[in-house]
Amino acid sequence: MDSSQSNQDPAPVWYVGHHHSRRSSPFSDASLDAARRVDYDMLTIPITTPAFQAKVAGMIADYLDLQEQGASADELPVPIVPALTPADTELAPLECITQYIAVTSSWIDLASADPVIANVSRQVFSLEVAYAAFCGVQNIMIPGPAVEGRVLTSRLAQYARCILEALRSGPYMQFHILLPMTPSPIFAQTPGLNLSQFAKLPNHADAEDYVSSSDAWSTWETWNLIRTVCSYNTRLSVALGLPKQLPSPAIQSRWFSEPLRLLLIHETSFITNKHSQPVLHKGYRHLLTRYMRLKTAPWILLWDVGPVQKDPSADDPTSTSQTWPLPSDLAKPKSVRLDPNPHLSYMRYLQRNQPPLPALLRFGAGYQDYLQAPLQPLADNLESITYEVFEKDPVKYDWYERAVHAALTDWAKLRKPTSSLTRPGAVVIAVVGAGRGPLVTRALLAAEATGVPVEMWAVEKNPNAYVHLQRRNADTWSSSVTVIKSDMRSWRGPLSPDGKLGKVDILISELLGSFADNELSPECLDGVQHVLAPAGISIPASYTAHLTPLATPRIYADILGKGRDDATAFEVPYVVMLHAYDFLSVPAADDTDRFLQPDVQTAWKFEHPVPRDVIKQAALRRGGSAAGGGGGVSGGDGANEHNARFAALRFAARERGVCHGLGGYFETVLYGDVELSTNPVTMEGKSADMISWFPIFFPVKTPITFPDNSELLVSIWRHTDDRKVWYEWMIETFTKVGGRMVKINTSELHSSIKNGCLM
Amino acid sequence: MDSSQSNQDPAPVWYVGHHHSRRSSPFSDASLDAARRVDYDMLTIPITTPAFQAKVAGMIADYLDLQEQGASADELPVPIVPALTPADTELAPLECITQYIAVTSSWIDLASADPVIANVSRQVFSLEVAYAAFCGVQNIMIPGPAVEGRVLTSRLAQYARCILEALRSGPYMQFHILLPMTPSPIFAQTPGLNLSQFAKLPNHADAEDYVSSSDAWSTWETWNLIRTVCSYNTRLSVALGLPKQLPSPAIQSRWFSEPLRLLLIHETSFITNKHSQPVLHKGYRHLLTRYMRLKTAPWILLWDVGPVQKDPSADDPTSTSQTWPLPSDLAKPKSVRLDPNPHLSYMRYLQRNQPPLPALLRFGAGYQDYLQAPLQPLADNLESITYEVFEKDPVKYDWYERAVHAALTDWAKLRKPTSSLTRPGAVVIAVVGAGRGPLVTRALLAAEATGVPVEMWAVEKNPNAYVHLQRRNADTWSSSVTVIKSDMRSWRGPLSPDGKLGKVDILISELLGSFADNELSPECLDGVQHVLAPAGISIPASYTAHLTPLATPRIYADILGKGRDDATAFEVPYVVMLHAYDFLSVPAADDTDRFLQPDVQTAWKFEHPVPRDVIKQAALRRGGSAAGGGGGVSGGDGANEHNARFAALRFAARERGVCHGLGGYFETVLYGDVELSTNPVTMEGKSADMISWFPIFFPVKTPITFPDNSELLVSIWRHTDDRKVWYEWMIETFTKVGGRMVKINTSELHSSIKNGCLM
Repeated sequence: MDSSQSNQDPAPVWYVGHHHSRRSSPFSDASLDAARRVDYDMLTIPITTPAFQAKVAGMIADYLDLQEQGASADELPVPIVPALTPADTELAPLECITQYIAVTSSWIDLASADPVIANVSRQVFSLEVAYAAFCGVQNIMIPGPAVEGRVLTSRLAQYARCILEALRSGPYMQFHILLPMTPSPIFAQTPGLNLSQFAKLPNHADAEDYVSSSDAWSTWETWNLIRTVCSYNTRLSVALGLPKQLPSPAIQSRWFSEPLRLLLIHETSFITNKHSQPVLHKGYRHLLTRYMRLKTAPWILLWDVGPVQKDPSADDPTSTSQTWPLPSDLAKPKSVRLDPNPHLSYMRYLQRNQPPLPALLRFGAGYQDYLQAPLQPLADNLESITYEVFEKDPVKYDWYERAVHAALTDWAKLRKPTSSLTRPGAVVIAVVGAGRGPLVTRALLAAEATGVPVEMWAVEKNPNAYVHLQRRNADTWSSSVTVIKSDMRSWRGPLSPDGKLGKVDILISELLGSFADNELSPECLDGVQHVLAPAGISIPASYTAHLTPLATPRIYADILGKGRDDATAFEVPYVVMLHAYDFLSVPAADDTDRFLQPDVQTAWKFEHPVPRDVIKQAALRRGGSAAGGGGGVSGGDGANEHNARFAALRFAARERGVCHGLGGYFETVLYGDVELSTNPVTMEGKSADMISWFPIFFPVKTPITFPDNSELLVSIWRHTDDRKVWYEWMIETFTKVGGRMVKINTSELHSSIKNGCLM
Repeated sequence: MDSSQSNQDPAPVWYVGHHHSRRSSPFSDASLDAARRVDYDMLTIPITTPAFQAKVAGMIADYLDLQEQGASADELPVPIVPALTPADTELAPLECITQYIAVTSSWIDLASADPVIANVSRQVFSLEVAYAAFCGVQNIMIPGPAVEGRVLTSRLAQYARCILEALRSGPYMQFHILLPMTPSPIFAQTPGLNLSQFAKLPNHADAEDYVSSSDAWSTWETWNLIRTVCSYNTRLSVALGLPKQLPSPAIQSRWFSEPLRLLLIHETSFITNKHSQPVLHKGYRHLLTRYMRLKTAPWILLWDVGPVQKDPSADDPTSTSQTWPLPSDLAKPKSVRLDPNPHLSYMRYLQRNQPPLPALLRFGAGYQDYLQAPLQPLADNLESITYEVFEKDPVKYDWYERAVHAALTDWAKLRKPTSSLTRPGAVVIAVVGAGRGPLVTRALLAAEATGVPVEMWAVEKNPNAYVHLQRRNADTWSSSVTVIKSDMRSWRGPLSPDGKLGKVDILISELLGSFADNELSPECLDGVQHVLAPAGISIPASYTAHLTPLATPRIYADILGKGRDDATAFEVPYVVMLHAYDFLSVPAADDTDRFLQPDVQTAWKFEHPVPRDVIKQAALRRGGSAAGGGGGVSGGDGANEHNARFAALRFAARERGVCHGLGGYFETVLYGDVELSTNPVTMEGKSADMISWFPIFFPVKTPITFPDNSELLVSIWRHTDDRKVWYEWMIETFTKVGGRMVKINTSELHSSIKNGCLM
């Protein structure tokens, strides 16, 4: 790695290898060493040789001869591919094998509609996979099901089933399916022989049965089918072929969400700069920067680049051999040497010159797509380290301080009466759920800055945090704070030394979860509202929960894994730093080809304080005396029913996709115009660089496929009974046919009732 | 029941009740007795009274008044419906309650987009369901989510969620959702007050959000959503309102497949015959005949028929009371009496005059939709009773006899050489898998009829059946048969007394399963083929497996139940007498409005004898010496791979629907033009009234919804390794958008590998 880079964090290492379409250097420790000397990290190697290819082609030709001589296809057994001989493969279980990516034959056609061609192709493929597994290959690359750029829709499942079989027969290998981002002429090239040329297509293979190669999304759709058949196997990933012309931002974003493990950059993608050196254009460089920030950065394969010599040892006259020339004069300074491997040098240059990571990616390193159960601070007592992580947020507490500052300023300006019994004229502030006291500090700072006298209370139920608060009061707050050990819902309010019960003017809390209300802020604040003076205010004043549908294949695979042991894996929302995902509802692109903001909609809102009549009614219902049948609608006495919510949200999806669930965010108005937001559309403007909250994710059990111009109708509930709060969600899809929206799918109703948040 | 009916089986009893839209007779044992005296079996009863309705309406009006006086909606608590008083309900836990169907209020709107109306509606609904459950109601009818014939698509989920809640709070009740077959003006009537008239619709309730009431399929779509949200709960069923004009055969068939438990026939559906009596037109009568043959016949509710008197006791001037007049002169003979309840009498007349049941329904009574694991006759030894059931088939053995007759006739005509070592000129027949010998008997009869001399062998592996065969040989076949105890695959062939091994000329077997090859007929016949003479023939000569996509909600619910204990419940095909199902791929209707034949496609074919080269290659592969990597494609040595199959079938679905799986059938050519078929399209022509086989059913785990003009692409495999045979299947759906087929869904890949058929 180059140590000359400017930013502090070490630049991440890129793994760059070399791939040749036809043949590469011979398989040997020496070949690999030669490649590594010029700084390649890995090589690809075809599993079988041209000699093997010729043998199989000969078998098929013989078979077809017999047919032409009049033998009926029914009477002829399918040709059997015999076991490999040393002439058929260069591969061997050498130590260097871990640095090689084995490549299965591209001249077979697993998706053939001709049963004989399909059968022989399967035999070749099985042989190759089994032999690669025997040799200890760790990574195997498999050409996608494209035959001259076209493939029968009705045979994609047949191809996918072969991959599933391969996953079983090579249980320790990672399988990379080579697919172009978008159909591309490079991939349509079928150099030399191709078994599909022998195929006899059945009558039913009509034009409608072909995947249109002109459709930019067709290779993604193919991938979606393969991984669906293979049940999102985590050993299955994409070797993505980047085309010369990059496709739309929407397609780039979609592939970003998929398990990319290899990126292939073909020689034709490079352009020449004024120094006659191969470089990549700006869009390409941005794409690489984005893709290389994936949690597991893909490996890059330079494809058919560099000097190629005809291989004199090969029988096949088109066969070539790769050599790895070293700079001719190692003694000269690097800058004046002639670079014999300029494409690779350019990739290393890009690697060294990556822009620094954004704050959130630096802060969240390692947490990308890692699923966490939401906190239950009401039921559990948090540990100090958890508080400490939150307190590190560079934005959140500053904004709280601004909010308190604004509230005190307004209070003074409006000459509102205060509630203090002990210090007439002082505004009574209570921080409820004070934790280790960061909001107390900030409120005191705001009071000092505004010059408004305050009487400060801190209420905390966690006995461990309570110790810490008392110590801070003595050490830092000059004992100016009254610290109370209590669940805020049981606190009767400020008690003066002469035993009189007072009220609170400003109630400050930080009870919000990733989806605003999911850590029961509404229930807690309802429970403490009786201490608030009639003119009192709550910070936060209100909060809203927001949603948008997402494609998250990586997270889906992860939950599917959890689901093997846990029937409720899909019935619970997760807190997760969303990373490898794609927004599915994005407004129509303008002509600038920019990456556009998604449609993130508001599900519901909570405001504090709650109107007195509502609180009164809730109290009346407690115990079942008010409502008919004694009942809340979702069970219980209904005392908390004013905190139930429902939303029906309609999202337009312009491009086809597959929905794995809903991303959830929140916004909150602390006071006035001081707001916090994790909503990707507004967070930059409202609270950029805030790191305290990851989004929430509501999964769906069965991924929901939909075509272009669809609508996703999301129904989501916040349910409550006497003891807990839970969510339910479902998604229905519609698509426009003949000007009318028609129903195309309905998910199950998902419910977190078994993992509800306890009140 | 009338004993004068002509057919032998007693006509099934119809349960007929009475339903009144507004009010019925008072709830009491006496009312019920009166209704039963005129031959009604049950009555409906509203759970709450008009007084209750007025009370709730008053609450809402008060609430709206407060709003109009300037109170903000946010500040007003939602009105709470108080507990029921005796004035609010007539219902009580009397003994007669089991004969009553309780009806929830139709004046509420559970699907309202106005949160206050929705909330109050939910309160009323919860109260009613809870009180009905308390009273011991067994059947509860709930008006569907239609408000003046229109309902917000985006709020159907909200309605459905209320039903789910009700299923939980009334765990011993059966819930009937009242829906018209197709949107109908009768259901759009909202007599008197309706809460929805108070609703304030939010801005987003635009025109596109409404279910079009002109779409004939919209009520079925609504039902499909409700039961999906309720996870196909078996306590949830349809109370189907039959409209005056019956909809298309396609819609009639679809509802037939749904859990119909109540059929409502409105007074306006009756026409008057020349005797001025109310009758139903022919299409209606056919529909009733069809629906009343459901395994659990629905109950019929006559709706708003008969004399209705204004109820003098009710406050509501529109309220009415039903009385049940008895014939005025009971002494006169029935024929000349004036019938005061002519609609009911007509239903009883229809009941007595139902056409006799078809043979298959008589034979299969009780087996409708009952899921059975396919037989494994190769792995298990069948019991005598199983053989006996099969031997009762009125068609199958006759057809075998015809086939043997034709084969022997041809044999003699063609002067083919025979293989007999002991009786020169005799045709050697072997019945392999002879069971209790029915085919031996038939072959002997055919030989006698043709006059062709035969040498008869019977081979059977089941030691118990072997005893039986020997006894029959002595008793019935004059010891003319040589009975061999052997698995056919180990039988070396006919052995002459002098120790010479002969060959078989005609090999007869009955190894077919519901999907042709699913009981391993191909593998068994391969294994015995070595005994066949070069010119020998196999009866059957060939067989084919057939498929068509189906809607089977009842079966789906059943497998879902099994799935709670068995993870492979959806990964295995079932043998089942398909009953409450609907064909999803039916060609376009002509103008005759007939019920049309489905599109049933051929998946694959097996022919016997298998070409010698194919058998030879298989033998060569056994043990792994021939194929590369030693391997069959699906594992094992590949010796049985010539019996693997794959099919990709494309089915057009004209009308929208939901697919729960694939119906499987077979056809076989026994010999020449003698064929058997269970394919619903051809069975009438090829082997009408054959009862030996029920269809097979391949389920899908997640039902697949699709819109009109879709295509279902079915991929199905017959896989094999050295030890077993199994199937895999998946379904992809496409729909036509802008002239192009676009992908809309992909099922999982289902596999019976864990329950494969052992070889």
